[in-house]
Amino acid sequence: MIHPIITLLTDFGSKDHYVGAMRGVILGINPLATIVDITHHISPQNIVEGAFLLSSVYTYFPQGTIHLAVVDPGVGSKRKPILVKGENFFFIGPDNGIFGLIYDQLKKISVYELTNAHFFLKPVSATFHGRDIFAPVAAYLSRGVSPLEMGKETKNFQRLSLPQPILEKKRIRGKVMYIDSFGNLITNITVNHLKKLENAPGKIKIRENIISGLSKNYQEAKKGTLLAIIGSSNFLEISVREGSAQKKLKSQKGDDIKVY
Amino acid sequence: MIHPIITLLTDFGSKDHYVGAMRGVILGINPLATIVDITHHISPQNIVEGAFLLSSVYTYFPQGTIHLAVVDPGVGSKRKPILVKGENFFFIGPDNGIFGLIYDQLKKISVYELTNAHFFLKPVSATFHGRDIFAPVAAYLSRGVSPLEMGKETKNFQRLSLPQPILEKKRIRGKVMYIDSFGNLITNITVNHLKKLENAPGKIKIRENIISGLSKNYQEAKKGTLLAIIGSSNFLEISVREGSAQKKLKSQKGDDIKVY
Amino acid sequence: MIHPIITLLTDFGSKDHYVGAMRGVILGINPLATIVDITHHISPQNIVEGAFLLSSVYTYFPQGTIHLAVVDPGVGSKRKPILVKGENFFFIGPDNGIFGLIYDQLKKISVYELTNAHFFLKPVSATFHGRDIFAPVAAYLSRGVSPLEMGKETKNFQRLSLPQPILEKKRIRGKVMYIDSFGNLITNITVNHLKKLENAPGKIKIRENIISGLSKNYQEAKKGTLLAIIGSSNFLEISVREGSAQKKLKSQKGDDIKVY
Repeated sequence: MIHPIITLLTDFGSKDHYVGAMRGVILGINPLATIVDITHHISPQNIVEGAFLLSSVYTYFPQGTIHLAVVDPGVGSKRKPILVKGENFFFIGPDNGIFGLIYDQLKKISVYELTNAHFFLKPVSATFHGRDIFAPVAAYLSRGVSPLEMGKETKNFQRLSLPQPILEKKRIRGKVMYIDSFGNLITNITVNHLKKLENAPGKIKIRENIISGLSKNYQEAKKGTLLAIIGSSNFLEISVREGSAQKKLKSQKGDDIKVY
Repeated sequence: MIHPIITLLTDFGSKDHYVGAMRGVILGINPLATIVDITHHISPQNIVEGAFLLSSVYTYFPQGTIHLAVVDPGVGSKRKPILVKGENFFFIGPDNGIFGLIYDQLKKISVYELTNAHFFLKPVSATFHGRDIFAPVAAYLSRGVSPLEMGKETKNFQRLSLPQPILEKKRIRGKVMYIDSFGNLITNITVNHLKKLENAPGKIKIRENIISGLSKNYQEAKKGTLLAIIGSSNFLEISVREGSAQKKLKSQKGDDIKVY
Repeated sequence: MIHPIITLLTDFGSKDHYVGAMRGVILGINPLATIVDITHHISPQNIVEGAFLLSSVYTYFPQGTIHLAVVDPGVGSKRKPILVKGENFFFIGPDNGIFGLIYDQLKKISVYELTNAHFFLKPVSATFHGRDIFAPVAAYLSRGVSPLEMGKETKNFQRLSLPQPILEKKRIRGKVMYIDSFGNLITNITVNHLKKLENAPGKIKIRENIISGLSKNYQEAKKGTLLAIIGSSNFLEISVREGSAQKKLKSQKGDDIKVY
């Protein structure tokens, strides 16, 4: 790529200078890199949330994109810094499960432990490997340095599994997995799960509220009322037309949901 | 343009992966596009607010810029996806009034309903046309695909009108239209309105507070006190020097203001 | 530079269209500029906070980078708009101390008062010099216009000094200088200050809490407990492993800290 793409997903927020420092380091090594923010508002140290959002978005980028993800409560300890090479994408970050949902989606992966300090900023701080290890490695990778120059392959890396819904012939029990900034409740029940039901979903129950069937779009519901819909990542979502399902239901991550 | 500019204005916030997905889709189609954020913090589903901010900023971009605006409570329903071609700019988004303030500012416009699914991401989701329709169409447009290849011209589109101030010889009655993050109250009274008064503005009344005349800059007022000033978009604004007029007055959008 | 870098640091927030307008103005003058956000979430009008973050991050950018910083309570008054040329970097913004911490770090600086309105947007508003003066000057500078074409050198500019810690043989008294979005308390005590103690730091006292010694990384402490650590900018920081020291201690900027 003429302008190789490096995406950033972190829990650094937008108040501080931390993300700016990473951008500076990347552009110092590869001025032609295109840096693209996914989000910097992962809840602090919430690896599962970061893994979920990353797994929902990485395929929308062009082939060759380097995804840099830093949600890193173990920074400075023995957790490994890694580079993951999939068929179409690269991933760089800590080996703590942040890429755990992606391993299962890729046919062929190679995972490298980043061991060659030649490609790190010096001295490496104990608290900010995003700036000192991950940003420079991403920038060198975008310039064509091979993963094997920067580390050694490893078969030992952290996987991650999300709670799966319980499927029966006539019903599915799932959970709210993520709540977005509109207050939409994204569940762990997918379109494919729903297809396995004997009958089309008749009722959806959440927090003592019962919703009748799936809506095809938000406008099918009245303003301010609950609806169930297949969202943009193919998960079942609970929404309120022109409102927030989270506020209406006082819902939280982990809430039970039943389809029958 | 070598690096065509695509701006983004949405109500998606910065917490989720939604804006990231749009960026990925655009760069996958046109790796040379320069993506520029205007804001992603329009109040959820607030079309009028989005229209106001877009109309305040679009002219500051270079000729040929493509402005992508997605505040879209009707996503997935029958509201049309459109592309607007003005003399110097393009606009892409839902036909719900988000471009309603721009139509009156442009001498010549052509509005196209986006009908050619060849230029959409497939399958088109019911909840995220920003990613599936508007982002790819903007990217193809930036590569030189003509509007007529992607849709058909229409004369039927949503206009929008904001409440106008009431002008009399000796006074003007207006309203607070927008409150910015400094707490400045931006009214719907412009410099041109003020020029129509018989005398220069002597008093400005808001929420039982009376301000004497216009300040030329914030420093003319004492710290913490109210002032009235012509803001950067040529509207009359109420501010507090080194403070927040919103907090001081407990003001809200729609508050009455009187100049006399 | 083929793609000259212009960084942005402001207190404009991300809700409004102000930063978008600056980006548009820059790209209109130099379409090849790479615009990089440091932060737009400096506390409103807090020059010291802006100066601190800028001084913590500017060296991570490549040589030739233009740093644009707008925290500008005196906009429209007589405070000077300036351009600072250091050995490796340029700085553009108001002369109010925002660059005050940088002057001491650079060996050789030249400061120019921006006086040539030819390089400003016209008319220059009274409230938004970020858009009307600083953004266009940065863009022209990135195109190779020399500082002397845009202004005249001045020896009269605002310096800034932060409260320094009090050093004794056996103890240091310092203060909390900044609190980041993780709730880490960044103090004004540096690694070099600590080296001047007769003995290695044994105890650190803050808000009646006593921490024993320095941790090498967050993982040395138990989850939820306080620790002291040298942070990524070489300042002593107080943190809570996988938590917020600010919340745990109800700490604020200016809090006293004692090392002994």
